[in-house]
Amino acid sequence: MQTITTDLVKQTIIKRPADSYKGTYGRIMLIGGNQNFGGAIIMAATAATYSGAGLVTVATDPSNFTSLHAQLPEAMVMDYQNTPQLLALLKGMDVIVIGPGLGTEPGAETVLTTVLTHVTVQQRLVLDGSALTLLAANPQPLPASPIVVTPHQMEWQRLSGLKIADQTPAANQVAAQRLHVTAVVKAHRTTIYAGTQAWRNPGGSPAMATGGMGDTLAGMVGGFLAQFADFNHAILSAVYLHSAIADDLAQTRYVVLPHQISAEIPKYMHHYSQL
Amino acid sequence: MQTITTDLVKQTIIKRPADSYKGTYGRIMLIGGNQNFGGAIIMAATAATYSGAGLVTVATDPSNFTSLHAQLPEAMVMDYQNTPQLLALLKGMDVIVIGPGLGTEPGAETVLTTVLTHVTVQQRLVLDGSALTLLAANPQPLPASPIVVTPHQMEWQRLSGLKIADQTPAANQVAAQRLHVTAVVKAHRTTIYAGTQAWRNPGGSPAMATGGMGDTLAGMVGGFLAQFADFNHAILSAVYLHSAIADDLAQTRYVVLPHQISAEIPKYMHHYSQL
Amino acid sequence: MQTITTDLVKQTIIKRPADSYKGTYGRIMLIGGNQNFGGAIIMAATAATYSGAGLVTVATDPSNFTSLHAQLPEAMVMDYQNTPQLLALLKGMDVIVIGPGLGTEPGAETVLTTVLTHVTVQQRLVLDGSALTLLAANPQPLPASPIVVTPHQMEWQRLSGLKIADQTPAANQVAAQRLHVTAVVKAHRTTIYAGTQAWRNPGGSPAMATGGMGDTLAGMVGGFLAQFADFNHAILSAVYLHSAIADDLAQTRYVVLPHQISAEIPKYMHHYSQL
Amino acid sequence: MQTITTDLVKQTIIKRPADSYKGTYGRIMLIGGNQNFGGAIIMAATAATYSGAGLVTVATDPSNFTSLHAQLPEAMVMDYQNTPQLLALLKGMDVIVIGPGLGTEPGAETVLTTVLTHVTVQQRLVLDGSALTLLAANPQPLPASPIVVTPHQMEWQRLSGLKIADQTPAANQVAAQRLHVTAVVKAHRTTIYAGTQAWRNPGGSPAMATGGMGDTLAGMVGGFLAQFADFNHAILSAVYLHSAIADDLAQTRYVVLPHQISAEIPKYMHHYSQL
Repeated sequence: MQTITTDLVKQTIIKRPADSYKGTYGRIMLIGGNQNFGGAIIMAATAATYSGAGLVTVATDPSNFTSLHAQLPEAMVMDYQNTPQLLALLKGMDVIVIGPGLGTEPGAETVLTTVLTHVTVQQRLVLDGSALTLLAANPQPLPASPIVVTPHQMEWQRLSGLKIADQTPAANQVAAQRLHVTAVVKAHRTTIYAGTQAWRNPGGSPAMATGGMGDTLAGMVGGFLAQFADFNHAILSAVYLHSAIADDLAQTRYVVLPHQISAEIPKYMHHYSQL
Repeated sequence: MQTITTDLVKQTIIKRPADSYKGTYGRIMLIGGNQNFGGAIIMAATAATYSGAGLVTVATDPSNFTSLHAQLPEAMVMDYQNTPQLLALLKGMDVIVIGPGLGTEPGAETVLTTVLTHVTVQQRLVLDGSALTLLAANPQPLPASPIVVTPHQMEWQRLSGLKIADQTPAANQVAAQRLHVTAVVKAHRTTIYAGTQAWRNPGGSPAMATGGMGDTLAGMVGGFLAQFADFNHAILSAVYLHSAIADDLAQTRYVVLPHQISAEIPKYMHHYSQL
Repeated sequence: MQTITTDLVKQTIIKRPADSYKGTYGRIMLIGGNQNFGGAIIMAATAATYSGAGLVTVATDPSNFTSLHAQLPEAMVMDYQNTPQLLALLKGMDVIVIGPGLGTEPGAETVLTTVLTHVTVQQRLVLDGSALTLLAANPQPLPASPIVVTPHQMEWQRLSGLKIADQTPAANQVAAQRLHVTAVVKAHRTTIYAGTQAWRNPGGSPAMATGGMGDTLAGMVGGFLAQFADFNHAILSAVYLHSAIADDLAQTRYVVLPHQISAEIPKYMHHYSQL
Repeated sequence: MQTITTDLVKQTIIKRPADSYKGTYGRIMLIGGNQNFGGAIIMAATAATYSGAGLVTVATDPSNFTSLHAQLPEAMVMDYQNTPQLLALLKGMDVIVIGPGLGTEPGAETVLTTVLTHVTVQQRLVLDGSALTLLAANPQPLPASPIVVTPHQMEWQRLSGLKIADQTPAANQVAAQRLHVTAVVKAHRTTIYAGTQAWRNPGGSPAMATGGMGDTLAGMVGGFLAQFADFNHAILSAVYLHSAIADDLAQTRYVVLPHQISAEIPKYMHHYSQL
């Protein structure tokens, strides 16, 4: 198992070409946020936007439109239960993040199934939070798209069938291969499995142990996938930077709040792009 | 009567263990905020979140969901009148704070009774604001859980039956013992009573004399109770830090607003954890 | 005509007594904000809160509750068309500010009449914006309470009958006496008339020429009246500080936005309280 | 083709006269923001307000009122589908910006037609985003007012009939003349065409390649047109400053978010007004 290096991150976060426009940096849709967990999709969308995704659309419960726009006017919104509109917009997306605050009600499952059956192999897919819970409870075929899952250890248990005590690197590797996904298994030291490769994230702090941290990571992963060509390197760089920012903030804070990480992303990405 | 010392605070706010996750820092539900006093529960939940509680759920009037999420996406929301959902979620909580902006309408009383009759001895309970008014007007048995009440002097009069002029330390001590609660009696110099012990808070400033300051304290007390094992030391540390932050801010401000205190909590907790 | 002096301001903004509580600093209700002009009452309430008023209640159209609470959880809210609740809460107020964004629809006039006919001589009244337009269009008797009006020159023309060209200090003085109010006539150099006295504000900058500046002043005047005993000195100090803050901000800004002034009020009040 | 110079900008952004009031700096209405794209009109209105327009009104879908007021209480709001109110308020405007987030539904076209048929030659008109798409799909006569269009290259293709590859300065010049508009053609190096003159903007950075950047520019253009007499110089100064601010922010940021630019406008305008 390799440790993610600053070299990998700085090679991923390249200087932007002068002659580029917002389409160059990807169209991303984030799907989630029911009437109880709207904050999760707000945090994910904030992270994606501050990561530099070109165009961000949020498909969520309409009750979340106002609170999202009150802090993130940069995102567009749509009702995730409006299937015709969802299908129409999905087609144009480069990256789809589904799960943060999605919930596990029947309507949520319908949305997930709609996405899984319509996403194409050209589109990148991030499955997080409730999407993983739904998939574990009621397995359905995953599309042939490049897929990354971002479970914490209990979600990984449900999805992979591996009890937390049995989540050894070797077992995780096999499970990720079997599922045909890149798996980001979140823990004190997060590990990432893709094909025959595995990485360990060197950072992370207990100051990150607060609600919404995972939603923020999912949004960052999506934002990086919208911009950077190498699928796994984009994911690894997002994981690395997420905890690197948190570790720096934790030098002076007992707890680091998710939105504080997002606010720092542009400065950290600039720093790595200049190395 | 002892004065709360920095020693007590620094022994309470321990360094977080490296291998921990959000569940380690507690699940807290804050219940309050009717259609007129929604700001109170927003301020309490903000304080709990910035205090480092692992997972924060707010049970409130649905008219407050959007304003809460617009500034605190880290919290989950639910309708406090939805009794089945309230009961389902209550079970998983480590700490319950009830009262900020709850109001005294019949519906509020129903919510309070639901909580008082279902909370278990494993759960910690913070009773504040309207919850104390309701209890004073219409006494009902308190559960055997560890309970802290956070009245100002007039609320303490209603609850304890002691007129403000009669609220001597000795009388307050007896009343707290009779009620089987830890009592935080808020005043220019706040005093705290638990069993045979009593403490005086050394800080506090007239710059704190503004609406919402008590809601913020209730949220901090809840946040600390979610993380720190010793019940009374957690409460005392929250009381101490709340006024210590305000006193520092008041060095340059005529009035200190509640949200300004919450924004500082992570830095102050970090400082004390390092002493 | 005297110029308002820093001496007057520093003698007004006294150090707060150590043993005080939020009731010491007054209960204020701000009434205004229809479905189109909700921002006005938000700005006024923000100014009142940051000025240190003890307890702030906003009576407004319910469509403004969420946007208000999203930025000012410290305030309580109520529907200004709910006359029974308005009457019940009005009784407990020390200061009432009516007008910012109130509009001139028939419902607005009803609210104004309700206030004018129920306010008592113990309560201080600030009439601003739409309240002045309504009064000019449809005169009704003013209560015997201490009243301050805060018109700009065109509103003063409507209210006093004096055309802008005729608004000489002497004529303004007579008009204010006839109306039995303290009149703050806003202009490049704002002048204030009370009985036989008149003052000129030394500050003010064209960077203040933007929407909402008057709403902010009305809120500051209300906030100061809630705390400081001398009626006219409280008003003069608010007028002075409002422009003093703006002038300082304008050292580096082409335009100063109202909320930027409110954010600075606590620091400036602290400064003057220490002189 | 000339390059926009700092000389032109500093001659445009003059010191404000001492004796001025908000009416001096113009009344501007921004029209846009449907139920999906509300953030666009929020960003445009924020830019107009921070640019120093005297009075800002936003005509938008009512679902956007709260999110707008939560961050920009300085603006007034109205329902853009309320045609009588729209017509009544339009009359008093100095500048009308239409298009950001307007969408292309039939209702949006109705609003656009209402504006185009009622705007007078004394009023300045900014056509952006969806307004350009609607016009290209369904051409209708433009009023004789001074008009500026702010298309990106694809919108300019639709509007002018020139394919992106054919958008040479000479062809753009002819098309702008034919349309009787000043055309701001947004690209890596934005160019501006008015009559026989053409300018190139020297600034711009790939950190600006993110959603909402164009809405912010449209709002700035509107805000500058509300204050500065020379039509084209106002537009050129807004274009210049928009990218100058972004370029400075991009010194430390990988991506610059639109609201970060707006927050800096007052300081940059002050700087240029002092040169």
